[in-house]
Amino acid sequence: MISGPSGVGKGTITKELFERISNIFLSVSVTTRIPRSGEIQGDNYFFVAVHEFERMVGDGELLEWARVYRNYYGTPRKFVLENLARKRDIILEIDIQGALQVKKNMPQGIFIFIAPPNTAELAKRIQLRGKDSEESMQTRLSAVKQELEHMQFYDYVVVNEDLELAVEKVKAIIIAERCRYSNILMEGSQ
Amino acid sequence: MISGPSGVGKGTITKELFERISNIFLSVSVTTRIPRSGEIQGDNYFFVAVHEFERMVGDGELLEWARVYRNYYGTPRKFVLENLARKRDIILEIDIQGALQVKKNMPQGIFIFIAPPNTAELAKRIQLRGKDSEESMQTRLSAVKQELEHMQFYDYVVVNEDLELAVEKVKAIIIAERCRYSNILMEGSQ
Repeated sequence: MISGPSGVGKGTITKELFERISNIFLSVSVTTRIPRSGEIQGDNYFFVAVHEFERMVGDGELLEWARVYRNYYGTPRKFVLENLARKRDIILEIDIQGALQVKKNMPQGIFIFIAPPNTAELAKRIQLRGKDSEESMQTRLSAVKQELEHMQFYDYVVVNEDLELAVEKVKAIIIAERCRYSNILMEGSQ
Repeated sequence: MISGPSGVGKGTITKELFERISNIFLSVSVTTRIPRSGEIQGDNYFFVAVHEFERMVGDGELLEWARVYRNYYGTPRKFVLENLARKRDIILEIDIQGALQVKKNMPQGIFIFIAPPNTAELAKRIQLRGKDSEESMQTRLSAVKQELEHMQFYDYVVVNEDLELAVEKVKAIIIAERCRYSNILMEGSQ
């Protein structure tokens, strides 16, 4: 789980990781939203109907889920576990609420918190993205302060002060976790 | 703790680490052996008299110790803790018996087992060093097989099949451990 407050750069870090480390794969989410032109079932998303999504929630088939406006999004447990069994590392780039749900459902996961160097710096970044009004920015900043309190539930904290350093740190965490005695046993080799 | 069976390459890996990572320091041992020409007190070793060494053992001042032929060698707890308090990472390159002693006395340490790719490969390496007679080589090989059973007490296992890869893995472990939530709290920053 690569997680952290909105605007902290977790998307950029995750994208860079895929250039630098082998045998990692992005988790494919389940969603009820309509496929966009060119999107492929099972590649970009698993597209399902609302009643099917609700059945999956009820049957505990999702490691986490959320409703965003009119659509549901979730992470299928089966997809993640099957890939792990094939010795693939699955990356979830995920917000903090989602990560806390996964923590409950799969505590053996590795939870990395991407932290802003400081709140002022984060404010600047959110501003630079220019997507938000002043009011919405203030709301988001106070949300971020609350979110930082969840850092304690994570295994690792990487401060994204310098993108290059942050990517190398997350890469090191993945390589190190592959060397854990428990993972050596599970996977038989490095 | 960088540890593993004799001949596995932990010395070479440790030496390479110092070229590639900052803020790591080698632990300085206490010994009762006579200083060689050019050796500096507190730099190469802390040289002490036998009665002083035995007092340190009695007072629990050593994280581990061993007698090698006529001399004692040990790792002073105070030296290690003082350096950790100064936010320095202290490396102990140490045999398995020593590492198990440290594990008892300082379980919060990070224990890395350097493993041979396979026993045959290790035999070849011990042979190539040419220091040992055939008989002593057989004795050492069966000792190695016993030592591998201790792997389970370690946090990480790095198979030294390719030196370059092994060094990068140990480096990744050190960087990752510096990002642990518990260490972030202790050290205040990365």
